[in-house]
Amino acid sequence: MEKTKIILDCDPGHDDAVAITLAANSPCIDLLGITVVAGNQTLENTRRNALNVVQWLGVDVPVYAGCGRPMIREKITAGDIHGATGLDGPVFPELKRKLEPEHAVDYIIRTLLASQGDITMVTTGPMTNLAMAMRMEPRIVEKIRRIVLMGGSYTNGNVTPAAEFNIIADADAAYVCFTSGRPITMIGLDVTRKVLCYPEIVERMGRVGNRASRLFVDLMAHFCKTQKEVFGWEGGPLHDPVTIAYLIDPGVITTKPMNTQIDIRSVQSYGRTNCDFFGYLHLSPTADVAIDIDADRFWDIVEAGLRNYG
Amino acid sequence: MEKTKIILDCDPGHDDAVAITLAANSPCIDLLGITVVAGNQTLENTRRNALNVVQWLGVDVPVYAGCGRPMIREKITAGDIHGATGLDGPVFPELKRKLEPEHAVDYIIRTLLASQGDITMVTTGPMTNLAMAMRMEPRIVEKIRRIVLMGGSYTNGNVTPAAEFNIIADADAAYVCFTSGRPITMIGLDVTRKVLCYPEIVERMGRVGNRASRLFVDLMAHFCKTQKEVFGWEGGPLHDPVTIAYLIDPGVITTKPMNTQIDIRSVQSYGRTNCDFFGYLHLSPTADVAIDIDADRFWDIVEAGLRNYG
Amino acid sequence: MEKTKIILDCDPGHDDAVAITLAANSPCIDLLGITVVAGNQTLENTRRNALNVVQWLGVDVPVYAGCGRPMIREKITAGDIHGATGLDGPVFPELKRKLEPEHAVDYIIRTLLASQGDITMVTTGPMTNLAMAMRMEPRIVEKIRRIVLMGGSYTNGNVTPAAEFNIIADADAAYVCFTSGRPITMIGLDVTRKVLCYPEIVERMGRVGNRASRLFVDLMAHFCKTQKEVFGWEGGPLHDPVTIAYLIDPGVITTKPMNTQIDIRSVQSYGRTNCDFFGYLHLSPTADVAIDIDADRFWDIVEAGLRNYG
Amino acid sequence: MEKTKIILDCDPGHDDAVAITLAANSPCIDLLGITVVAGNQTLENTRRNALNVVQWLGVDVPVYAGCGRPMIREKITAGDIHGATGLDGPVFPELKRKLEPEHAVDYIIRTLLASQGDITMVTTGPMTNLAMAMRMEPRIVEKIRRIVLMGGSYTNGNVTPAAEFNIIADADAAYVCFTSGRPITMIGLDVTRKVLCYPEIVERMGRVGNRASRLFVDLMAHFCKTQKEVFGWEGGPLHDPVTIAYLIDPGVITTKPMNTQIDIRSVQSYGRTNCDFFGYLHLSPTADVAIDIDADRFWDIVEAGLRNYG
Repeated sequence: MEKTKIILDCDPGHDDAVAITLAANSPCIDLLGITVVAGNQTLENTRRNALNVVQWLGVDVPVYAGCGRPMIREKITAGDIHGATGLDGPVFPELKRKLEPEHAVDYIIRTLLASQGDITMVTTGPMTNLAMAMRMEPRIVEKIRRIVLMGGSYTNGNVTPAAEFNIIADADAAYVCFTSGRPITMIGLDVTRKVLCYPEIVERMGRVGNRASRLFVDLMAHFCKTQKEVFGWEGGPLHDPVTIAYLIDPGVITTKPMNTQIDIRSVQSYGRTNCDFFGYLHLSPTADVAIDIDADRFWDIVEAGLRNYG
Repeated sequence: MEKTKIILDCDPGHDDAVAITLAANSPCIDLLGITVVAGNQTLENTRRNALNVVQWLGVDVPVYAGCGRPMIREKITAGDIHGATGLDGPVFPELKRKLEPEHAVDYIIRTLLASQGDITMVTTGPMTNLAMAMRMEPRIVEKIRRIVLMGGSYTNGNVTPAAEFNIIADADAAYVCFTSGRPITMIGLDVTRKVLCYPEIVERMGRVGNRASRLFVDLMAHFCKTQKEVFGWEGGPLHDPVTIAYLIDPGVITTKPMNTQIDIRSVQSYGRTNCDFFGYLHLSPTADVAIDIDADRFWDIVEAGLRNYG
Repeated sequence: MEKTKIILDCDPGHDDAVAITLAANSPCIDLLGITVVAGNQTLENTRRNALNVVQWLGVDVPVYAGCGRPMIREKITAGDIHGATGLDGPVFPELKRKLEPEHAVDYIIRTLLASQGDITMVTTGPMTNLAMAMRMEPRIVEKIRRIVLMGGSYTNGNVTPAAEFNIIADADAAYVCFTSGRPITMIGLDVTRKVLCYPEIVERMGRVGNRASRLFVDLMAHFCKTQKEVFGWEGGPLHDPVTIAYLIDPGVITTKPMNTQIDIRSVQSYGRTNCDFFGYLHLSPTADVAIDIDADRFWDIVEAGLRNYG
Repeated sequence: MEKTKIILDCDPGHDDAVAITLAANSPCIDLLGITVVAGNQTLENTRRNALNVVQWLGVDVPVYAGCGRPMIREKITAGDIHGATGLDGPVFPELKRKLEPEHAVDYIIRTLLASQGDITMVTTGPMTNLAMAMRMEPRIVEKIRRIVLMGGSYTNGNVTPAAEFNIIADADAAYVCFTSGRPITMIGLDVTRKVLCYPEIVERMGRVGNRASRLFVDLMAHFCKTQKEVFGWEGGPLHDPVTIAYLIDPGVITTKPMNTQIDIRSVQSYGRTNCDFFGYLHLSPTADVAIDIDADRFWDIVEAGLRNYG
């Protein structure tokens, strides 16, 4: 089986860390590089977190720091969910892994230009790095095989009633990506809210008993606590890893092609992903939007991913 | 038991006609008047439809014609759902019932000013008449006991991905009502999509066998057909009657207080009801938003309502 | 010569008071009624001010109170310019004149419906009353001969950089009027800023020496003082009377037909009158926009208007 | 006298070509590099035009190609004014000058980071390159001495009634620059419309008689023709060179500090520069906005600039 080549653009973040875990050691995925963006926390935090995770896992993937601010709007973070470091919970040993010297945007441009059009761009944070790269070097657009993102919602948001965090944090960047004309799979809150990491899930993953498993348990202890404080539910939704699970086993989610537009010209609804579920607008579909997930299958993929660490 | 005094402001419309049926002959409700607005069809159509319905049912309730256009935006209608007349399906005998000469807005003002603050305003169409009355005579606002509306959605819309028909048809009017400071119960697509009028429901209501039952059956034959053509589902959602069912038996729906804002300054998301389900914005609730419905209980209320016609 | 029949809709307001003075006793104008709206001050203030002005002048014109709030947005006033009463400066004797019992919106509807299409609507405040009337009774629209308004600017505003007071105070109402399809003459800040009421003008008008002259002098004493405090210029711009001067002698201003659109869907630029001076948009003109004024001729008209009071 | 170090970011464009002419050979200015952006024409055109101009003038300044699209919105050009090449009119010899291999955004970042904070960024096109650089490497922001731009208008626009070309072509980029916190001088249509290049000006510059003079005459022949066709006036406004004239002799324009906000969340007024001329909003000034120009002095600077070519 041919591995799916991906660049993973992320803002770790607890669920991003699980996405890295699944992607970095999967027999189905060739993780070319990790690019980091500000989002769940500042760039200073998210890039350190990414390094800590790859060092902890012992995987050999280059990490590039990218943009520390959204393209246009002011920066927001999600400290209430991910803590002051962006990855509160686990205690990591001294950090020895280093960032690559190249800017993430330059790395994305260089790698895509040199590619055969076979690289999937996976974003689990604000889409700033990818959109900046598209605007600096438009020739990369046609080189992108597909964009798979965690973000958005065709129902309701989690930062405002209209908007989900990864999109509202840089809706302008999302607009650039969604209007790029490339195939795009949007995995939003509509499905990620269905994979709640209940205590029994944490226990199950803990029983795997390797270093990936220990990281997962430490991450989830904090994540589920803050999710309960902020949203009131038991078991936080494991948003970001759904992107990787989908690449490992596309059948884990059901998608529907929808015309999808990002509202960047509203103040109140800024960042809403207006997905035309019912096709009222009679416009061509522009994204494959996840509408359902097989939760059991998802947790099996996660467990298998942890077990890949031996 | 004291009857709930209401003015029913509507744009019949198939589901409005069922709402009239339930309200006009309920032992729990004192239907003071029906005011009509453009919405599902033009005012010329909706006012005739209202008269046809009350004449067919043989109920003695005055009908007032109101505004033929939204407060600000251009008029839209829903001819694809309700047909060229706005009430395609039933064949009515010659119309002898007459409209009252007073404008619906003047009627609302006069009636509320003279009231003891005990009148509930029920709207099942665009909220134009009520909002116009509030702006012409602000002293009526404090006289309104509660506003109960069918409209909006905290998930996704049915005209655009962002907006539901009754709200987008005059979002500015909805904005006026939602910022009036009066208690408001918003019954939106989030629950009305759960009361789909499947063929077995139509059969059940048909077995009641009186004139109200016959009207229901004739209405639903057309309504369910166009719902399937436009949205692809079997059984149309019986939106408007949920307002009356709620007044007859409040327990039929579950509501949650939410800060609710109408987006009137966006172009793309115009008419979205941004309901803060999770309380992210830390703002005071401004509406009781329906989040669930007991469908079995609802259909029992509908059947009982039809049986009231003997 | 046939008199121009007008209804003057205003929010006195110092310059409104001068507009009333010019209109109420001109041989060229038949002032059918004065309708009052909230604007420069609350409705309680503006309606009393209108009565005080007509009583002081001894003119026999009915005064109708209209809307106390804009159609959609929250009310704003201009207390910094017009003072706590809205007409600070003059001291009026005890008020004996009464408001007509009819609502201004009903009066406008009734009068226009009964007319031969020969009435010009003049607005020197927010356009709420006229827009509300158009929406309550759309048949009046074709009865309006022309709308002449003081409001807007194709350059820059006087409340925000984008918007002028009368428009931003109810931009939605202005939108209704500007999209009505009737002939419309917009007299905005672009020209009214050229008729500054310098001290020598006040002296000149004072020399007329009758009751109208005394009112003018008392009004301007306060108006010019606050204009200087707020805007820093000597001599306040006598905005509203330009509408009446134009009806008395159309040659006093130069107009240019322009496609004119009111921005009601922006937050930052809400209320901007986007007038296509150069015709970039290749859209049909929708308003005759004043682009220049003959200031000498204007002051002659004002002086003659005061002298009409004997 | 110390020379003012500048990077000139432009989209030639006829008036950009004159700006290059003035900047490249002035004893007061050290033109470090020219960066090119899409604007008046596509990037393919504007970068070739820049090379043609520097080759014709025989000046030794590096030219870098930058972004070919605005940050977020779709690309627009101004082919009606500048022709199919973006520099219709002059006939240039075979092009031998080459672009530098580095991307303009990387050049701006590298140069500013290495600087002592003494470089002024001059933009005479859409502000895409500068804004992209700020977002890729935020540390450059504090290195910018001042931004001097041709763009915007506090009165009315030249693409829509609300917006000027350089701003509306990438209002999001302008927003980034105007919110950067750096000193900024905005030279907009409000003053550039006062330096109309009448035939007698063209004749005067033609009498200089060197290669710069010949370029000027050939450029203006086309520019003034299209300005007349599009806007109806004799003599096109020589927008872009005012930036350079201001750096050579700041007294040529009068500026006023104003709070200046770019409307990027409106559809109709997208790209308006809302400059608070009168200080209504009581917000801190964010830009020095040009409000007047000494036209005679400006033309003297232009003539002297042409004479610098011997």
